[in-house]
Amino acid sequence: MNEKADKEFVKDICAQGTDFSQWYIDVVRKAELADYAPVRGCMVIRPYGFAIWENLQRALDDRIKASGHENAYFPLLIPESLLAKEAEHVEGFSPQVAWVTRGGDEDLEERLALRPTSEAIICSMYAKWIRSWRDLPVLINQWANVIRWEKVTRLFLRTTEFLWQEGHTAHRTEREAEEETLRVLDLYADFLHDVMAIPAFKGVKTEREKFAGAVRTYAVEALMPDGRALQAGTTHHLGQHFARVFDITYLEEDNQLHYVWQTSWGVSTRLMGGLIMVHGDDAGLKIPPRLAPIQAVVVPITFEKSKAEVGAAARELTTALQAAGVRVKLDDRDEYKPGWKFNEWELRGVPLRLELGPRDLAAGAVTAVRRDNRVKQQVPLAQVPAWVRAELEAIQRDMLAAATAYRDAHTRVATSRDDFYLLFQGRPGFVRAPWCGDGVCEDRIAEETGATIRFLPLATEAAAGEQCVGCEERAREWAYFAKAY
Amino acid sequence: MNEKADKEFVKDICAQGTDFSQWYIDVVRKAELADYAPVRGCMVIRPYGFAIWENLQRALDDRIKASGHENAYFPLLIPESLLAKEAEHVEGFSPQVAWVTRGGDEDLEERLALRPTSEAIICSMYAKWIRSWRDLPVLINQWANVIRWEKVTRLFLRTTEFLWQEGHTAHRTEREAEEETLRVLDLYADFLHDVMAIPAFKGVKTEREKFAGAVRTYAVEALMPDGRALQAGTTHHLGQHFARVFDITYLEEDNQLHYVWQTSWGVSTRLMGGLIMVHGDDAGLKIPPRLAPIQAVVVPITFEKSKAEVGAAARELTTALQAAGVRVKLDDRDEYKPGWKFNEWELRGVPLRLELGPRDLAAGAVTAVRRDNRVKQQVPLAQVPAWVRAELEAIQRDMLAAATAYRDAHTRVATSRDDFYLLFQGRPGFVRAPWCGDGVCEDRIAEETGATIRFLPLATEAAAGEQCVGCEERAREWAYFAKAY
Repeated sequence: MNEKADKEFVKDICAQGTDFSQWYIDVVRKAELADYAPVRGCMVIRPYGFAIWENLQRALDDRIKASGHENAYFPLLIPESLLAKEAEHVEGFSPQVAWVTRGGDEDLEERLALRPTSEAIICSMYAKWIRSWRDLPVLINQWANVIRWEKVTRLFLRTTEFLWQEGHTAHRTEREAEEETLRVLDLYADFLHDVMAIPAFKGVKTEREKFAGAVRTYAVEALMPDGRALQAGTTHHLGQHFARVFDITYLEEDNQLHYVWQTSWGVSTRLMGGLIMVHGDDAGLKIPPRLAPIQAVVVPITFEKSKAEVGAAARELTTALQAAGVRVKLDDRDEYKPGWKFNEWELRGVPLRLELGPRDLAAGAVTAVRRDNRVKQQVPLAQVPAWVRAELEAIQRDMLAAATAYRDAHTRVATSRDDFYLLFQGRPGFVRAPWCGDGVCEDRIAEETGATIRFLPLATEAAAGEQCVGCEERAREWAYFAKAY
Repeated sequence: MNEKADKEFVKDICAQGTDFSQWYIDVVRKAELADYAPVRGCMVIRPYGFAIWENLQRALDDRIKASGHENAYFPLLIPESLLAKEAEHVEGFSPQVAWVTRGGDEDLEERLALRPTSEAIICSMYAKWIRSWRDLPVLINQWANVIRWEKVTRLFLRTTEFLWQEGHTAHRTEREAEEETLRVLDLYADFLHDVMAIPAFKGVKTEREKFAGAVRTYAVEALMPDGRALQAGTTHHLGQHFARVFDITYLEEDNQLHYVWQTSWGVSTRLMGGLIMVHGDDAGLKIPPRLAPIQAVVVPITFEKSKAEVGAAARELTTALQAAGVRVKLDDRDEYKPGWKFNEWELRGVPLRLELGPRDLAAGAVTAVRRDNRVKQQVPLAQVPAWVRAELEAIQRDMLAAATAYRDAHTRVATSRDDFYLLFQGRPGFVRAPWCGDGVCEDRIAEETGATIRFLPLATEAAAGEQCVGCEERAREWAYFAKAY
């Protein structure tokens, strides 16, 4: 590619306002986060995208471990008979399962599922491992790839293969299991908030939306700039459904055999999709500093005369930033012009750009440009490392504030059927509305408007005196509706 | 389980001298490193085993990144047509491939292989991504699960599914690719040496033993205490074989299209098997301190009278060790006796045990016992954190020294056919012997003795005046033979 083609490549991103879906795909591909694979619905996560995922994974894994969980690894392949044991579970997942029918030179006697989720295989092991109350709780998490045969796919948001973590825990009491389910829900919401700069609502799913095999499903739901909600993570209270079919019992202190109480919970590479959408703009990505593989890029502005001097100062600055613990990159490629580099690093969402030219150097300063709000200022060279560290914190804070302001501005209330249906002629974001509590009504609303109940508040909010926005019968409680990914 | 059954569980490990294979399986299962899964040949890596793997993975990943490589993720599923493109490659792997033939509710038009290795899928992407000399080198690594349909399996050492890293690089010149292949070979050998306390030989594979599709395969080979060699990692110079069939070209500065030169390289969860065998003894595991999830365990020896006091001192000691950066565990479980705990932590290979009883406390000291050599000494309480840190380094060093002494004592020379065949009536370890260079002779030796050429020295060692230990014709060079896992 020559430079002109390259420049156009960077610039050629569809505007969000023109076509948000196209903007999304352009950014994912042009920032080299991911690419389409030769198998339908599968993706390749490219090094830059994977570096963001690794930072995300590391930060989340630290929190999962700090809350007492251990990692393990269970097999990809699940015998059909095992997957079929829990009826609701298999019914929920079987349309999405990919099957191995041949291994080496032989046809298999029993088909093997590629895990769409691992409850079945993990329960079969817990039945062997758990014997006594002393073995409980079991608090295990796994990072793995899963396969779900999807009809419509979109890079990161819905792919045939994706990466995720899935926690699977077993407890002595229902209360302990419920506490675990809510503890991890908080963990997810805090992680989104603190690390990803994404404000998410916590809530409980309706029967229609819950996990296949769960007693109750909780979710964190975030709002995207196109007005759609994204389910960012779920935690499931599994009750004793799986324990009964997989026979996971333990000897209590009372010397009786009891079934365990279980939970499962997960987030996936789908979070990458949320990250891209929540923060991005027409110039490309904006990566929150805590996740950015490159937090600051140093771009020397060189002319023949001052090249050596500016180059040396840029290297020195880079070293000083590294020493201060900043993930910094020096972009001293000769073959690209500064303007091209500015575009590229903006596309890639690097939080801070530090320009260093002869005039900056003469002033003993750098020109710093924030990616999130484009604010530009000169910073004295000696102060740069400390300033960058503080500014990265400020960017993280400001990005969260901006996302929160957007989410709050797009969380509305509708109390009449007409208002509700009018709002959902568009994509208004979240709409808090009274609901009768009936799944049939919920289905009809979904069919007629495309909006689903994303969650019910954790503490049920009674809607006394209100009418359901679907059937206009007496409302039972407030629910949060949205069109969703 | 009652305490008696538990104690027997810990003790009931087959002696190495009685049946090494049974000892290995007992240790893997009783130390809760791994367990058999419901699918033949698959394993579950349990939390303790996975914690060791994570330490290993982190340390190796740091080195891979420090040497300029980036991580990425490529799909699990590979279309049959893609896998079949490189003839030698598919011929080598097809007997081991598991096939997906059905996805969701439909039979697939083309079978999809579960990756046995990722050259094919990665090359198909490199063909899209690589355009110009500016894009080179491409230095990508991936951590992933792979599937190879194995007839005979053994936990960690050979399983149908295993975890690994696979590096895949593309270069402008043959020389660059060769340098990369050797650089990573050094990286593997240093990693084994520095982190795993395993001395390994570096060498080049014969034609018979090389990777399907490679020009040349290098390997690190370690020696197990049963006299068998373990191939611990391989690096492959792929030449332009894959570039030609996948059409991976780039525009050189000379404005001509050229094929890239490629390498690939990997290590797997098999390393766990090596770790267990090289260092273990009849009491169980010995984990090198740099990999140990628990580097020191504090066991309070409590009697009714002194329980509170000893317990408080043990907690204080644990806190002090944590503050000193030691991965320490306090085992203050009431339901187990100290003797039982000693056995358990020995089985699990914790490098240092710190016993703290009333007599120790009265003396202002702890009794420290090293796992590797069982040396026991009293250490004044105030000195414990600094002493532990130094002692962990000493243990790491001494474990490497012990493994090196064993390896060197079991690396012999044979210069006559009789000596060679006599040695391989047993399992002598590595045998350095003159070889004619003929693959037919190599095959016959393998068939008759069970020994294969593990490697040829990196710098060919001419065997002038010697006879081949297989055919007694004129020898060309020295080769290292062993029976192998």
